[in-house]
Formats: sequence, C-alpha cells, structure tokens
Amino acid sequence: MIRTSAEYHESLKAMKPNIYMGGEILGRDNLPGTEILDLTCDIAHNKEIQHLTTAKSHLSGETINRFCHINRSVEDLLNKQEMTRVASRMVGGCVARCMGTDAMNALSVITYQCDQAHGTEYHDRFLSYLRYWQDNDIVGCCAQSDVKGHRKRRPHQQTDPDLYMRVVEKKKDGIVVRGAKAHNSFAPLAEEIIAIPTRFLTPEEGDWAVAVAVPSDHPGVKLVCRGAKYRDRVSELASPLSGKGEIESLTIFDDVFVPWERVFLCGEAEFGGQLALLFALYHRHSYTGCKPAMTDVIMGSAALVAQYSGIEREGHVRQKLADLISVAELVYGSGIAAAVKSSKDGSGTQIPDVVFCNVARKHAGVNLYHEYDVLADLSGGLPATLPYSDEFVSDDVGELVKKYLARADGVSPEDIYKCFAWISDFSCSSMAGVLQYAGVHGGGSPVMEDIAILGTYDIMERVEIAKRLAGIED
Amino acid sequence: MIRTSAEYHESLKAMKPNIYMGGEILGRDNLPGTEILDLTCDIAHNKEIQHLTTAKSHLSGETINRFCHINRSVEDLLNKQEMTRVASRMVGGCVARCMGTDAMNALSVITYQCDQAHGTEYHDRFLSYLRYWQDNDIVGCCAQSDVKGHRKRRPHQQTDPDLYMRVVEKKKDGIVVRGAKAHNSFAPLAEEIIAIPTRFLTPEEGDWAVAVAVPSDHPGVKLVCRGAKYRDRVSELASPLSGKGEIESLTIFDDVFVPWERVFLCGEAEFGGQLALLFALYHRHSYTGCKPAMTDVIMGSAALVAQYSGIEREGHVRQKLADLISVAELVYGSGIAAAVKSSKDGSGTQIPDVVFCNVARKHAGVNLYHEYDVLADLSGGLPATLPYSDEFVSDDVGELVKKYLARADGVSPEDIYKCFAWISDFSCSSMAGVLQYAGVHGGGSPVMEDIAILGTYDIMERVEIAKRLAGIED
Amino acid sequence: MIRTSAEYHESLKAMKPNIYMGGEILGRDNLPGTEILDLTCDIAHNKEIQHLTTAKSHLSGETINRFCHINRSVEDLLNKQEMTRVASRMVGGCVARCMGTDAMNALSVITYQCDQAHGTEYHDRFLSYLRYWQDNDIVGCCAQSDVKGHRKRRPHQQTDPDLYMRVVEKKKDGIVVRGAKAHNSFAPLAEEIIAIPTRFLTPEEGDWAVAVAVPSDHPGVKLVCRGAKYRDRVSELASPLSGKGEIESLTIFDDVFVPWERVFLCGEAEFGGQLALLFALYHRHSYTGCKPAMTDVIMGSAALVAQYSGIEREGHVRQKLADLISVAELVYGSGIAAAVKSSKDGSGTQIPDVVFCNVARKHAGVNLYHEYDVLADLSGGLPATLPYSDEFVSDDVGELVKKYLARADGVSPEDIYKCFAWISDFSCSSMAGVLQYAGVHGGGSPVMEDIAILGTYDIMERVEIAKRLAGIED
Amino acid sequence: MIRTSAEYHESLKAMKPNIYMGGEILGRDNLPGTEILDLTCDIAHNKEIQHLTTAKSHLSGETINRFCHINRSVEDLLNKQEMTRVASRMVGGCVARCMGTDAMNALSVITYQCDQAHGTEYHDRFLSYLRYWQDNDIVGCCAQSDVKGHRKRRPHQQTDPDLYMRVVEKKKDGIVVRGAKAHNSFAPLAEEIIAIPTRFLTPEEGDWAVAVAVPSDHPGVKLVCRGAKYRDRVSELASPLSGKGEIESLTIFDDVFVPWERVFLCGEAEFGGQLALLFALYHRHSYTGCKPAMTDVIMGSAALVAQYSGIEREGHVRQKLADLISVAELVYGSGIAAAVKSSKDGSGTQIPDVVFCNVARKHAGVNLYHEYDVLADLSGGLPATLPYSDEFVSDDVGELVKKYLARADGVSPEDIYKCFAWISDFSCSSMAGVLQYAGVHGGGSPVMEDIAILGTYDIMERVEIAKRLAGIED
Repeated sequence: MIRTSAEYHESLKAMKPNIYMGGEILGRDNLPGTEILDLTCDIAHNKEIQHLTTAKSHLSGETINRFCHINRSVEDLLNKQEMTRVASRMVGGCVARCMGTDAMNALSVITYQCDQAHGTEYHDRFLSYLRYWQDNDIVGCCAQSDVKGHRKRRPHQQTDPDLYMRVVEKKKDGIVVRGAKAHNSFAPLAEEIIAIPTRFLTPEEGDWAVAVAVPSDHPGVKLVCRGAKYRDRVSELASPLSGKGEIESLTIFDDVFVPWERVFLCGEAEFGGQLALLFALYHRHSYTGCKPAMTDVIMGSAALVAQYSGIEREGHVRQKLADLISVAELVYGSGIAAAVKSSKDGSGTQIPDVVFCNVARKHAGVNLYHEYDVLADLSGGLPATLPYSDEFVSDDVGELVKKYLARADGVSPEDIYKCFAWISDFSCSSMAGVLQYAGVHGGGSPVMEDIAILGTYDIMERVEIAKRLAGIED
Repeated sequence: MIRTSAEYHESLKAMKPNIYMGGEILGRDNLPGTEILDLTCDIAHNKEIQHLTTAKSHLSGETINRFCHINRSVEDLLNKQEMTRVASRMVGGCVARCMGTDAMNALSVITYQCDQAHGTEYHDRFLSYLRYWQDNDIVGCCAQSDVKGHRKRRPHQQTDPDLYMRVVEKKKDGIVVRGAKAHNSFAPLAEEIIAIPTRFLTPEEGDWAVAVAVPSDHPGVKLVCRGAKYRDRVSELASPLSGKGEIESLTIFDDVFVPWERVFLCGEAEFGGQLALLFALYHRHSYTGCKPAMTDVIMGSAALVAQYSGIEREGHVRQKLADLISVAELVYGSGIAAAVKSSKDGSGTQIPDVVFCNVARKHAGVNLYHEYDVLADLSGGLPATLPYSDEFVSDDVGELVKKYLARADGVSPEDIYKCFAWISDFSCSSMAGVLQYAGVHGGGSPVMEDIAILGTYDIMERVEIAKRLAGIED
Repeated sequence: MIRTSAEYHESLKAMKPNIYMGGEILGRDNLPGTEILDLTCDIAHNKEIQHLTTAKSHLSGETINRFCHINRSVEDLLNKQEMTRVASRMVGGCVARCMGTDAMNALSVITYQCDQAHGTEYHDRFLSYLRYWQDNDIVGCCAQSDVKGHRKRRPHQQTDPDLYMRVVEKKKDGIVVRGAKAHNSFAPLAEEIIAIPTRFLTPEEGDWAVAVAVPSDHPGVKLVCRGAKYRDRVSELASPLSGKGEIESLTIFDDVFVPWERVFLCGEAEFGGQLALLFALYHRHSYTGCKPAMTDVIMGSAALVAQYSGIEREGHVRQKLADLISVAELVYGSGIAAAVKSSKDGSGTQIPDVVFCNVARKHAGVNLYHEYDVLADLSGGLPATLPYSDEFVSDDVGELVKKYLARADGVSPEDIYKCFAWISDFSCSSMAGVLQYAGVHGGGSPVMEDIAILGTYDIMERVEIAKRLAGIED
Repeated sequence: MIRTSAEYHESLKAMKPNIYMGGEILGRDNLPGTEILDLTCDIAHNKEIQHLTTAKSHLSGETINRFCHINRSVEDLLNKQEMTRVASRMVGGCVARCMGTDAMNALSVITYQCDQAHGTEYHDRFLSYLRYWQDNDIVGCCAQSDVKGHRKRRPHQQTDPDLYMRVVEKKKDGIVVRGAKAHNSFAPLAEEIIAIPTRFLTPEEGDWAVAVAVPSDHPGVKLVCRGAKYRDRVSELASPLSGKGEIESLTIFDDVFVPWERVFLCGEAEFGGQLALLFALYHRHSYTGCKPAMTDVIMGSAALVAQYSGIEREGHVRQKLADLISVAELVYGSGIAAAVKSSKDGSGTQIPDVVFCNVARKHAGVNLYHEYDVLADLSGGLPATLPYSDEFVSDDVGELVKKYLARADGVSPEDIYKCFAWISDFSCSSMAGVLQYAGVHGGGSPVMEDIAILGTYDIMERVEIAKRLAGIED
C-alpha cells in the first residue's frame, strides 16, 4: 500500500492529543511541518521519480514507498541516497521521514545478530512489525538521543538513572520503559515512534539496552514540542514555504507499557550499543543525500542573488560557488562510495561502509556554518534588513520600496523581493537556527563521526607503511 | 549636558511618526532596541566607568558623553575602543550609538580637508553642528549604504540615478536630496541622521558627493523598518533581554530639503569618496571594541554550557575556548595598535591606523560564523529543540521537563533552562540571523577590508625585500 | 609482455645521453627515481596484487601491465585507482608512471572524436601505437605544461610564439615541433614522451593543437633536469629510500621531427583543448589514488611518532588523525564515485565523471600543506634538528645521542632515530618541497579544478530549486 | 661596547672545537649561519636604524647593542619588536640572537622574584653577569627544550631522570649539571649558552629547577649539530644568501661543572616553572617581530612572482596578498598591544602582556604552512622543477633555458631565474623545512600558546557576562 497525503492526514486526525506546546495540549491537525511528511507520501505517486521513491518489499513482493523499505542491495542504498537528495531539494531542508526508515534498517540487522548470539526471537518480531509498516505505509520516527544528564557520566553513573531511557519493569505481557528523548524532530507527525539506545553500553547497563516501537499517541507518551516557521508574507509575494515550518519534540516516556511484540531488544547490553551505532550509520548515509541538497539550496540561492545583483561573472563569486559545489559533491560522492563498498549482513540487509559514511557526514557538519557564511557574504545585508511585505504593497511607501529594491535590469521588484525574503527565511530566522543546529548535530556531531571513524579505520596498516618507508623492522 | 535615559525618552516621544513597519505607521515609543540606546545614556552616569564613558569637549570644555566626542588623542581612541567593548558586553551585541559618533569624527576631518582644498566653509558649519550635538547629548546614526542597484555599475551608470543618494536641486537656502539608505540600524531611535556617501566617486559624480544631517522625523524622511526580538519567556524564567530586540531601517529620502547649515559636503567628488572611507575606518575601529565583546559573549556562553554539562575540563572544550579568545584578542590587540599608531589630522582629530583597523575588522568578519559554529558544537542540539517556557511551568508536564533537563549536580533546572534559552535566543532565532549578517557586513564586508588594506599597504616595500634576498638588482 | 625491472634497465641503458643536469650531459643509468619505475614493473609480477596491476588488453587479449591499459569499464577505473594507491604507498609518494597511462587514455578518446568530426585518421594511428606500447610494456610520460610566458596572454598573443609548443613545419613524412614542456616529472626515465596541449585553444590557434609521441632520446629532444634526494644515512640506519629520490625535467623540443605515424593531432584547435582537459581529467582521477596514499603515509608517520612519544591516546592526536583520515577518504570516495558515475565514449574508452574527479583533486590540493602542518605539529621540532646519522654511530658522542633520543619505553634508539630521520626526509628536505609543490600543482592547481567544475556543473538547476522555494515563477 | 662582526669573528676563532657534525669535530669558523649573527652586530653600527638597534644600559649608562639590553619601558619593548622585524627581513628569516636576549630578560625578573621569596642572592649574581654581557657585547643563546623522553611523564617520572636537565651534584664552588637541550638553534655561534628549565615543575622536582650560563665551549658541553643551506648558484646568478644557511644543535651537558656565580636558580621548583614560562613569553613577543617579517618575505616574493608572470592585478592574487597582510599585521598589531599593555616588575624589568603575546604567536604558528601554500600556489610548479644554474649558463642549452623562462615583457631571464631560484631556496629546500618547523614550534607550539592563554585569561568574567544576559543569578 502506498498512501496519499490525504490518507496520511486521515490517520493523523484519529490520533489522541498528547502534544504540549506553548501552554496548550494539541492534536495533530495543523502542526508545522505537516507538508513535509505529505511530500514523502506524494513523491511515491510521482511517476517521474518512482524508480527512486518506491521499492519492492522483500517480504510481500508488493511495491511500497521506499521509506518503508529495507535496503537489500547496493542499488537500494544508491536509490535511497538519491531519493533523499531529490526530496530534500523540494522542501529546502530536512525531509523528516528517513529517521524511521534508518531505525528500521538498523533493527533488521541487530535483531538478527542478537538472535544469533543469544537465541532470542527479536528478528521474527521485527519482521512482523515491518510487515505492519509496509502494509500500512507507516510514517515513523526514531527517538534516540537520551537527555544524558552529566555528560561525563555513563548511564548507570547518573544521579537520576532515568536520564537515559531504561526498562523499569518486566511483566508477563510486556515491559515498562521510562526516560526522555531529546531532539526528536517531527515526532508529533509520526504515527510510530521507535526508541533505541543512544550509546555504547557496558555489561552492567542491560536495563538501558532497550528498543521498542510505540504509537506516538500511546498512553504515557508525552511530546513536549516547539515549532519554527518561515515568516509569512502578504499573499501576492508568498512562496510555497511561507508560513510553513517544522516541529521538534522532547519525547517523554512516562512509564510507558510496551507489549512484547513491540520489544526488539531488552537487556542485551552489547547489542544496545551496536544498535545505537548502526542507526547512526544508516542515518549518516541518509545525510549524504540531504546535506548535498541543503548545499544545492544554498548555492542556488547564492547564484540567484549574484545574478540579480549583476555580479554572477565575478571571480570571487565563481570561486565561492566552486567551494560550495565541492562540499556538496565530496559528501555525495563519499555517500556513493559508502553504497558501493557496502556489505550484506546475515539478515540480508545491506550495510553502508562506515568510514565513507562518516567522513561524508563529518565534512558536511564542519562546513555548514561556513556555507551560511558564503550565502550571507554574497547576499549582502538585505536578508537581515528587508522591509516586511506589508510595506511592499503599502499605499504609503510601496512604490518607494519597489523603486529602491532595483538591481539588475529586467528583474522585477517582486522577484527581487521574493529572492531576498527567501534568503532571509532560510538564513536569518528561527528556521535558519534550526537548520544550522541540525546541520552540526543531526545524525551525530562531528566529534561522534571522529569516534566512529577512529573505531573502524585501520590506522596500524598506515603505521606499517610508515615503518617500512623509515626502514624500521618489526 | 549628559542626558539620562528618561530625558532621551522625552525627546523620542516628541518626534513625529514616520516609521513604516508591518503595515502601520508608528511613533517612537516602544520600538525594539530602545533599551540599548538607554544604556548608552546611563553608562555615562555610572561612576565606575565614567573615565571611559565621558570625555571633555574640546569645544566647550564641558564633560560630555563620549559618544558625542571627537577623538583628539591616542588615549581618546583607546578609551572609545574600551567603552565600546564594555557597553557591547552589557547588551550582548551591537551598542547602536557608535555609528553617529564615527560619522561625526569623519566629518570633522573631511570638512577641514575640503575647506583646505577648495576654500569651502564646511568645517565651521560642522563645528556649530557638533556644538549642538554636545550641548544636547544627541543620539545620532549614520545612513551610509546606498541601495546600489546593479552592483557592477557606478552611481552615474545606474538605470535610475537615485539608487545612490544625490542632490536633485540646489536652492538659495539649502538643497534637496533624494535616495535611500539600506541597513540603517537603529535609525528610528536616533534623533539625528547623518547621511554620507558610500563609495569612491569619479569626477563626474559630484551630485552624489553629498553629506547632510537631518532630524530623523524631518519632512520627507521615511523609515521603512523591520524588527527582531529575543523570544519572550514566562516571567519566572525571564532574562534582561527577554522580549527585547533591535530595529533596522530602509531610510528613504523622498526629496528632502536640507538647509545649508546642515550640509557638510555638496559636489566635491573626491572628498565624497574620502568621507565614505574615513567613516568606514572609524567604524571599523569601533568594531575592534564591539566584536571582541560579541566573542566575550560567545565564549562565556560556551564556557557556561560546558560547565553545566560537566565537560568544562575536556581538552577539546578548552581548545575551542582558546580559539575564541584568540579571535577576540587579535581583533582587540590590533585595535589597540590602530590607536597607538594613529595620526593627528590638521583639524586636530585623531585618525586610527588604516591597516590595523582593517585587518582587525576583517578577522572578526571571517570568523563570526565559525564562532557560532563553536557555540552550537558545545551546546548540543538543545538550543534548537528546547521546550517553551510555558511547558517548564505547566502543571501537566512541568515536573517532567525539569527532571529531564538535569545536567551537572547542583545546577537548578531553572538555571539550565535559562542558559539554553539564552543560547537559543542568541544563536537560534531571528536575532541570531541579524547578529550573523551584521558580523559579516556591518562596518564593511571582508572584501571591503581587503580593498582598504591593499589600497594602503606598501606591498612594493616587501617586493624590494624579496628582490634583495633573491639577488635581483633594480 | 610484462617486463621485469631488469628488462626495463636494459632498455634505459641503450638510450642516447640527452640529459643536462648540473653542468653534465648524462645517460640513464643511476638517475634518481629509477627505483620508482622499477616498482611499476615489479608489482605486475606480484601475485598478491596482480588483479590490480595487470589487465587484459582489448587489442591483443594478452595480459599486460595495467599502466599500458586503456580503461574500458567501471571496474578498470576502480582497479586503476586502487593500484595507484597501493603503489604510491610503497614509494611514499608519486608513482611516476600514470602520466603516460593517462595521456594514452585521453588520446584513445580524442583521436576517435576528432576522426568522427573531421574524417581524420588519428584513431587508427593511435591504436597501432598503443599496440606497440602494450607489446613492449613501454614506460611513458606525458609532457603537457607549456612554459606559458606571460600568464594573461593566449598562445598566439605571446611575444615569442614558441612559449607554447607548436608545429613549425609540416612535411610529407611528418612534422617539426618546437617548444618546451615544464614540470615534466620523471621524463628522463621514460622511454616515450607524449606531448599534448596544455589549454583550450581558439580557432586561430591550430598550430598549437598538436599531439605527438617521441622516444625520449629522439634527436632534438633535450631534457634539462634537476633531482631531489632523500638524505643518505650510515648503512646501519638506512631505509629503503635513503639516498633515493626523483627527477624533474624541462623538456625542450628543439625543432623535433615527428613522423606522421606518431602524430595524433595536428591543427584541430577545438580537440587540442579537449585533449588538454581530458588528460587532466584522467590524471586527476589518478590523483584520487595517489593522494590518499600520501595521506596514508602522513597519518602513518604521525601515528608512529605519537606512539613513540607515548601520546597516541591523547584527544588532540586522535582528532588530528581523524582529520587526516577524512581528507584521504573523501578524496578516495569521490574517486570511487567518479568511476561509478563514469561513461563510455564512442571509442569504447571509459571516462570518469568530471565533477567527482575535480572536487576530489581540489580537496587533496587545498589540504596538502595542512597535512604537513599536522605532521610537523605531532612530530615536534626534531625532524628539523635531528643529528646526522654519523653522530649516532660516533665513538665520541654516539652513546650520548642514543641516551637522549629515548622516548616511550621499549622503543630502541635506532627505531626512534629512523622514525625521525624518515619524517625529516619526508617533511624537511628538498624532497619535501617537491612533494608539497606537486601536491598543490600536480594534475592541475586548485584553481584549474574550479574551472573544470564550474564549466561542467549544472548551477542553473540549483538556481531553479532556489527560485521555486522563493516562489519566483519563470 | 658595541662590537663589529669582525670583532665577533675574532672571539669565535679563539673558542675550542666541540661541534660534532657529519662525523667531524669542528671549530667555529665557517659554520653555516655565521652571517646572521654578523648582521646582528653590524646593524648596531647602521646609523639609520640605531634608534632601534642600540639602547642605553641601565647598569652602565653606556650605549649598547639592543640584543644585550634589559627592557625597562613600553618603548623598549616596541623598539625590540621593530628591530626584530627589520633584522629578520634582512636575513629572510630567524635573526638568531633574540633567544639569548629573551633569556636574560626572563632571568632579570625571576632572579629578583626568587630572592624576594626565598632570600637567595640570584639577582645580584645576574646583574654582574649582565654587566659582563653588556661590556663585552656577548652573543648568547638559550638552551631550553629538554629532550623530554616519554611525553606523558613528568621529569621525575622518566625512566632516565637525565631526560630533563638537572643538578647531579652540588659542590662548594659550584654545581654539576647533566642533560641535553634539543632544537638549540645557532648554539655553535653563541659565545654563551644560558640553560633554563622547559616546563612547570612540581615541588619534588627541585633538582630540575636549574638555570646556568656557560661558555659554549665549556668543558663537558658537546654540540651535536646539523646544518641547512640555501642552494649554491653559479656566481653570475648568486644572491646574498646563496650557499648560506643555519645550524641546529643538540646541546649535551655531559656532567658540566658550573661555578656558583653563573648559577641563577638551583632547586626552587616553582621559579623553575615560572622561568620557563617567562622566557617563552619574551620569546613569543620576539616572534611578533620576526614572524611578520617572514610574512613580509612571503608576500614580497608572491607579489614579485605575480608581477613577473603578468598576473599582479588578478582578483585572486590580490585577495591572497590581503590574506598574507592580515596574518602579518594581526600578529604585529597584537605584539604592539602586548607592549602597550605590559607591566613593570619589581626588578624594573618590563614584562609584555601574556594574552596578546600568545594569541599573536599562536596565530603566526597556525598560519605558517598556509602562507607557504599561498606562495606555492602563486609561484606555480617552477620552484620545484627549475633547472640548475649550471644549465642557465651552459653552452649547450643556456640559450634555450633563457628562451623558455620568459614571462612578462621587459623582465630579463636572469631576474626571472633569480626570482624562482630564491623562491625555490625559501620554499623548496631543506632550509624551507627548517623554516616551516621553526614556524610551528619555535617559541612554543600552538598548543603551548593555548595553555598559556587559558592559564591567564579571565574566562569566568565572560561566564558572568553570559549569566547576566541569560538572567541567571548567582
């Protein structure tokens, strides 16, 4: 089943209100960011890109939305990467739905491996749950980042053990979990929340090695939210994103009961850590699609404003564009390499290469603020000082505002206004802040990529190269 | 006379409404940013820093607010720089009043030099006007950046000649000017606007070589404005800046008549360009005070969040703080050098060194986004995803929010919340965007500093050094 | 035929002396760098890596040294890239033989395309010549960089038209060429020199559109050379590279006659420029193999010196290693993407993707000096101040030198000495300078990559993305 | 007394041979680097700069070489900084003599402070020794960097306690010291060596808290040396530096007896550490003079090669020059600030500001390799591939070499050759490696500057700023 956005809306409407935002308790109609999830439904019906946006389920053989698919080949990974870039360009940023997909892919591997090691039955449970996802074209998200308390202490060393989500009770028919997941982007718009651990766990930390899936309006689940919106404009100057935005959640599991069929890890500490890392790996691979799209947007905006200002042939402009292209394509190219050098797990799931994914994500992260710097540099100060659209259409000063916005010949004041209003939305608003923080921390901060890289890379092989060149014998 | 902020408010209240913002025409009470100008009044009454914030007028011998003072010595420049840093720390950013001061200092030199070259009488006019400023403790601003149209065309080559402000009529008792000045920060809160040219002018561009001062509610002056505010919080969590902000103006001179006694340049093209550069020079020197204060705020915030997270002793944290310190103090140190190596003009006004001012401003500009990157890096994602303050105090979820904000032992949830709310205000809001754009473009974009540096620096002296070392004889 | 290094030596010995270096005219025995070309022969006999170092000729079906092979598939490009990395690690830098290979691949395409456009017969000639290469396992090089004179003038605008190599006479049996090619690394050790244009050519520049192959001791060919060597050490401390080095040539074509069967372009201006670019493209793809190997050497050396100093677990050390890994693998990963996204030309030759090759080469180039900086940083000052090996073995001070070289327990003074002597060789010697300059300029300076990127990339597609997001309709 | 270089040579000649280099034991005539110390003598006789290069002794009232002077005022520090820049420009790099000067200045403070704290008599001894220096215009150096062994262990934790220099015996008439000092640049050309500790010392490390002065040919002192030279050229192409160079020493104190009158610290652990830091501080202030001179040389060379290539007006060339200027003048400007904000010690000695010195030195250090990158970028590959001067004058190929070196009209082949030969000397030779390593590590590695900065800077003041802005009350 591949749902339309209208069908997705029906489902949202039926959910119970558990969204706490701005002093109110809200339901799920009219939340900022809805249109982004809508798009993830609609692109699967877009014939031009269906080769990217749909896939054949390896369970049912049915054609499904690729966001519900488990990657089984190099081509799957390449298609997911490309779909992510295409969709992210359309929304000018995060496409919101890959978190759930990435969590499902990680679970498909770890449930299998845990079963192999411990004789557990997680993988079958997972496959049943996956079948439910695919049959219902579920929009899901992943709740990973625990609130973490004192940053130098492990989960079991925290003053309050709940600062990392944990099992507080095991019952015959299920478990009770307690904790809170921060930075849970778009969670209010997901139908299902998959909660997984956030870090390596030591053997005594089995209680924190828990992975579950719950409906996002499940009893005890409380979403404490915050939204960000692009500025509104008068209708004659509006863009597709005007007044639209995104939503973030601190997702609290206030002693939430989860039946066993939705528990995919419970107590196996070493697999808790591996699940954390593997989700991050899939998510970083998704970043090799969305982050180049962000750079596409930045370079397109920069090139547009340069053209409107008449400076598009200037040497320094072109050099800055070349720098932006380099960021985009080094990240995208390394993501391709991660797919090409991927490996197949025993479960049949395809796992992207760790090093290529991580150097790509790291490069994206360390360059993001610099890319905003380039955009600000080429745009001049106007995104920060642009008059409101009300004055553009005002009887008093509208004609003066139009007169003084003029730039290159032949570009209308309306187009100039929209260009700068968009750049202002994108780089000089609360949305800009969210995009900047997400660019640094989403899918893992640069320092986490370093850890992943160093934990995997064969440095000693390079030491041997150096020793041989130096004439040092072992 | 040194006014209090209350006296300044009285003056604002008496002004005519000519502020166009959000579809309304506003007067000057309750504009965002008022408290910043208030502070520039109040610090002159603060005994602890009066050695910085006041000066002795060289005209009247009276003690005046330093913002009304003409620099006459190395010490004046050092004191102005230090005052700017002190005040900018207090408001967490731009102190708003130095633009007027810098314009007055530039006029004091250029009116003198033009008189010497052309036998004009600008300098005496200027001194009378300065006396008015000092006697009334005027809050002024400088309107410099023309809207500029096609960026590759000179003023006289624009399709519409008004895209750079110009004289359209000379009368017996004064002149009529037309044009618009962009990025005119805090103009609605100024009592006087000084308009000056924005670039070098060729001999045929005498009409654009015009400098005037007008009251900011003068007939024909229209301020098309836009505000930015720090987010509001519930009162128990409020900070001094909550709900406060700043204001930007596109200041339109819609055929404004200016009497001769307020005209300080009119037709002398070469001095038009020199005035543009000299204002920029003074303003860049001011940046050597305010920009280190911005970095003080960033590093203080970064150190605070590190402390609250328990990671303040980590190597990478300390290295990032050292990098921030380096940015702050290289800029500040070079500003000191600019004062120490300043020169005295024939008018008696002290002019800071061009190269030291410009390398300092350039260094500040190219590092600003990186500083935000460091702050985002050390803060984690929470500034972008922090629940609203309503939920912190909510009966439903308040206790849960507090529980899950916990970090280092002994820090209250309130303080943690305020810390992250402040960082969110500063780095993840429309105010952040304004601060970022101002950091790049205010007082001149990095490329403008390059031009100023290269126009001044004795590269050929270095070429001679190289030739001598290479054995090349002239 | 796959030659051994001994067979290659026989061939060198038979060549006529035309190498001008240090006031002497030399033959080809005992030139610095010989051992590098030896290695390119020997690795084709190394069974462990023959899957990389050999290939099946598409002309003869014989197994040949991959350096003589024309890439016909994605796998060929991936194998060439990997072979280059493997071999470059062995020699600690440039593997010298890919220039010839890259030139042959470019000729295989351009001769075909020119024939298609102009009805010429270059491609058949080329195939005959290729057959000669493959049958004799020729070591070749590519002479591309003209000396270029005044950098702002095109070839036909130079005061001396010979500053770009050109045809000065066409005869019945061949042509006469004149000019000089700079930076012709390892040319004295090549048996064949392929000379091709260095830049885009305008229609009136047909005389400069010339591609020929000549034996490197051909009459009129004069190699004005310069060598660099790693420092010698006393034998008990020697490394495989001690006393070894490399050689550079200014290759002068002093009115050289070339018979038609060795002329592959002569007058077709547009294909002259395309040949220049296509060679550069293949060569930049080779850089995606050798440059990561350089970084392997740098990171291995840095990790080794950190280990010997006892600081290998320090946070800043590990972060610097992660940065080096990122450089290596972003470049390598994008090289993989360039192969995966390659296309097949009408001639059957596989052409790597332009953008991925160029962003990779650019990233390598802009980071090279920084990588040396990291190595110097982690090594401390000793590579610059290490006593000579004579003192290490001296009766007078040898024991003292050994005593004071001590670092981590259990590492012998000999190994410490060799480690620092190697780093000194690599980073603090005339060889280091050559490696640094080659890292910036070899295969194209960063600015050339920008030009290649901007000439290819679809910036307008990104502008359209921005316009759509801004609400601007075309 | 202000000696001439001839007088200095007489003194060198009389010294005993204790220099171990390349298997020989050498005396002090004809060592590389002599001409640099010569220059430090000769500039004190150069009337044009005597206001910088001489000073009035506060002991004798005599005019002395400023290198023998103790700084007593802001002006002294400013003059020393400027002298260092002027002299470093003349030699194209390190001026070699400031180390001794900086050590003497540090001793003048620490001996005084130690006496105040402990009732010792070091300061009088020091003043007598200073008088000897000034009366004889001594050329001295400072031996600071211990060889340090395992980098994670303190002096008293090393397997061999001698890896940091220490007192091994106290006698009635003096002490015996043992250890070795690495990176002791120009020590063979110094008449006196001042040895001081290299780091903070714990209370149990009194044996390592030792400061002494010995003649550099003192019994037991062994200098294990290494030289670097600029390449020689045929005489018609020679430069002032051709064949000249510098020398480095591993200075071994092989149980050296030092009489008490030359012992300036012996056992006072806390002052050992302070001496280490204070010498570093003075030396970093010297770097604010020499490092801008290095950048002067780099930018002069870059501008020269751009001019000879005809590209001196290109935008990217000018932007790179502006970047180099910024490095030079931020460092120099902060050095000026360090002098202006200096303080006077109880001994009367002027101490530069810690933070400004260290941010300046750090900025110089982190940019050095990048500056070389810019020079390589603008020079093209020729510095690495330039034919030897023998071929320039050869009958066989000399005319061809000259023909193909042509660049901008009107520049002779000789000048072009000299230009590139110089850049090759400076950036592509063993001298280049020494300059690069010295640029990173001389006077303290960047990480040492971070430690000095963080140990001094009032971070908590900035935290308070942030807390106030956040609304957090203490």
